[in-house]
Amino acid sequence: MDDKPRSILVLGGARSGKSRHAQSLAEGMGRDRLFIATAQAFDDEMRDRIARHRADRDASWRTVEAPVDLPGAIRDHGRAERILLVDCLTLWLSNLLLSDADLDAAGRSLVRAIAETPALVVLVGNEVGFGIVPDNALARRFRDAAGRLHQDLAARCDAVDLVVAGIALRMKPPAR
Amino acid sequence: MDDKPRSILVLGGARSGKSRHAQSLAEGMGRDRLFIATAQAFDDEMRDRIARHRADRDASWRTVEAPVDLPGAIRDHGRAERILLVDCLTLWLSNLLLSDADLDAAGRSLVRAIAETPALVVLVGNEVGFGIVPDNALARRFRDAAGRLHQDLAARCDAVDLVVAGIALRMKPPAR
Amino acid sequence: MDDKPRSILVLGGARSGKSRHAQSLAEGMGRDRLFIATAQAFDDEMRDRIARHRADRDASWRTVEAPVDLPGAIRDHGRAERILLVDCLTLWLSNLLLSDADLDAAGRSLVRAIAETPALVVLVGNEVGFGIVPDNALARRFRDAAGRLHQDLAARCDAVDLVVAGIALRMKPPAR
Repeated sequence: MDDKPRSILVLGGARSGKSRHAQSLAEGMGRDRLFIATAQAFDDEMRDRIARHRADRDASWRTVEAPVDLPGAIRDHGRAERILLVDCLTLWLSNLLLSDADLDAAGRSLVRAIAETPALVVLVGNEVGFGIVPDNALARRFRDAAGRLHQDLAARCDAVDLVVAGIALRMKPPAR
Repeated sequence: MDDKPRSILVLGGARSGKSRHAQSLAEGMGRDRLFIATAQAFDDEMRDRIARHRADRDASWRTVEAPVDLPGAIRDHGRAERILLVDCLTLWLSNLLLSDADLDAAGRSLVRAIAETPALVVLVGNEVGFGIVPDNALARRFRDAAGRLHQDLAARCDAVDLVVAGIALRMKPPAR
Repeated sequence: MDDKPRSILVLGGARSGKSRHAQSLAEGMGRDRLFIATAQAFDDEMRDRIARHRADRDASWRTVEAPVDLPGAIRDHGRAERILLVDCLTLWLSNLLLSDADLDAAGRSLVRAIAETPALVVLVGNEVGFGIVPDNALARRFRDAAGRLHQDLAARCDAVDLVVAGIALRMKPPAR
């Protein structure tokens, strides 16, 4: 029996090293590597961030962009032996929120795409629920949607890592 | 010797699945189950949330409301073999803050009620201290009070779980 | 072989008990104890906080203040057998931000000072990256700088603890 995880959810705070950890996990899973980027370069701050992350990946990685139709990208590009690294769920949700999409339906569609893909999958998400309740309703809606999506994905992924200061803690499967 | 915890503190972020985890723990502890709700339905958002949580509990649960006098509810309803599920500490603190109560005195009174009750207790709290320092002084006071209360309760409870994306990590007693 | 950590990074949320945990670790490491305080008493809230923390330490502790030149303080006071407890990195970064310093250069200078000191070191930092993205650009810059600094220090420290509700979870070295 093979006990290597085929799907891993990597959660962490802002600037926690979660992208780097996810990339390192993905590179240990195989050689046919596809990076699925959800970021959109609206401003210089985001452009810098995208460029910095891209510079961290070597030539073994191909990149596709899927700011909105992430489930479609997983269906289109998923094949056996390929590793899909999705970075990140939070920007995807945020793009959906801005385009006024149904967040829960989109979440269900993503969970289905991940359940059905023959590819190996590493997903990166920002854990955003550990602060004070945000003042504005949109931020609260976003936080709720992110939390529910992470729960649904964590229930279905073989492994879940929480990254703090670059150190990963494997929460699933449990250590004991 | 019985090493099953008689008091468990469940902490987690917003939409982390902490309520569901706490309920599942509580249902494993016995059959005489009382849900102590601290939520007050001020607006539609909160009314929805309360209804959703109530729908998650089956008919084996009775519910009492204790938005302000939570220590009193624990004293009144605590008896041997009964499981009290308090959901959640954060709304209780927030109700106290709005009614201008002495948060530290209330916290001490709650810790005492929990120490003295013959019942088994599961407590749910929102960990809110992992974000940027809030702009407004009230939010900072709230965050400080929540943190101190969680520390006091964690020191006294037999077990402490941290829930992230529906996955619980037992922090106390430690794994090693 | 000595497997006791010589450098420990303690991370936690606001009011998580991280200072107390760090102090307790430090007191177990030796008897020549120096507390390096980065706090500046700008207002009553901060003055109270400093006084409360100071009252928690017994007479075995000497205190020096290093609100800005923390690397210099570590170089000046670090000697073999001495324990330096730095509390906290977050206030230091925040002081640097207010004085318009180069945060990344300062971070590198701190990492170097810690790598070179003959002293044992315990560092306390506030994990601030687990909330919703802050509205204002300065808070985002601060959050990014704190995250990067924590990653750099975590990579170099022998041990990393995450404190939640007064309970410490050793993240590095890993439990398994």
